[in-house]
Amino acid sequence: MIRQLLIHIGKSCSIEAVDPGLLASFFACKTYKKNELLLTEGQRCFEKFFIIKGCVQLFYLRENGTEQTLDFALENWWASDFTAFPNGGIAQFSIRATEDTEVLCISSDGQRALLKQLPEMNAYFHVVFQRAYAASQMRLRYLYEFSKEELYRHFLEHFPDFTQRVPQYLLASFLGFTPEYLSEIKKKYLS
Amino acid sequence: MIRQLLIHIGKSCSIEAVDPGLLASFFACKTYKKNELLLTEGQRCFEKFFIIKGCVQLFYLRENGTEQTLDFALENWWASDFTAFPNGGIAQFSIRATEDTEVLCISSDGQRALLKQLPEMNAYFHVVFQRAYAASQMRLRYLYEFSKEELYRHFLEHFPDFTQRVPQYLLASFLGFTPEYLSEIKKKYLS
Repeated sequence: MIRQLLIHIGKSCSIEAVDPGLLASFFACKTYKKNELLLTEGQRCFEKFFIIKGCVQLFYLRENGTEQTLDFALENWWASDFTAFPNGGIAQFSIRATEDTEVLCISSDGQRALLKQLPEMNAYFHVVFQRAYAASQMRLRYLYEFSKEELYRHFLEHFPDFTQRVPQYLLASFLGFTPEYLSEIKKKYLS
Repeated sequence: MIRQLLIHIGKSCSIEAVDPGLLASFFACKTYKKNELLLTEGQRCFEKFFIIKGCVQLFYLRENGTEQTLDFALENWWASDFTAFPNGGIAQFSIRATEDTEVLCISSDGQRALLKQLPEMNAYFHVVFQRAYAASQMRLRYLYEFSKEELYRHFLEHFPDFTQRVPQYLLASFLGFTPEYLSEIKKKYLS
């Protein structure tokens, strides 16, 4: 599993200084069945997850008890509540596997120790979070700019595999649609 | 000016290894008059800005020619189009000073050289972008969760100084309101 993380690190940083065995010693390998929770809203968040295989959904519970999907994370993405993670604060949302999922998991204490022993990893995390923040800047623009139908079309064009992979009622929730509305738009695009 | 950046770095990282003179050599000090542009949508983005004093607005032009405010940045915040910045790509939005503003400015080439000579700065940027991404995760939740009125109230409670400081028509644009709607809600809260 650590090989996949090393390959991902190597895409943006020099990894010669990183000893694979030492790096692996800071991570736990975990597997989650479809629908199992990796993180629960309202509980302390001590871990962040690197997705090796599978897909997870980030969501919170609305006051009326229904779920609102905030985001997804696929292979080679990092997922956590990053407000809560650094100091083990209370999670403001949950993370659930939408298919059988394997992750590398590191605790906030583990990460502090990792960055002390392998400070080169900061260069990797700098790139990871700059990219994640950049994506969220663009997503915000799309939320303001696009109609619901344009949002779906944009998503379909830019993430076709993803649109196939994620359960349609979750995709609808992510886009802020009702499942019925998504179904209507899909019919329109297929016809 | 570099002292302010050093203090900001020191809040999250050890700065003993950072030579202030060497750090300063990678940055240019720039000043912008109120309403001057730091970055223009459609042009290449080669720079990122650390706000020393003042306030900037991030916005894009809608098809109908009106401006949509995406975000603001105040003292000790970093601002740029972070999708475009790393490789000098085309900016997807503009940045404009909403008051007379002083910044420290670094180019993408300059940053590559900085991180080569002072790799400790990666630890700082890791913290900066993790925090920015965390804030955008929460903002996304608020956008889904809150009504327009709740959004304004939340903003007023959490950023009271900011609400005073930013021109009201820009605050309205940021919150996705018309200026008239913001004016109505404000009257309600003041009465």
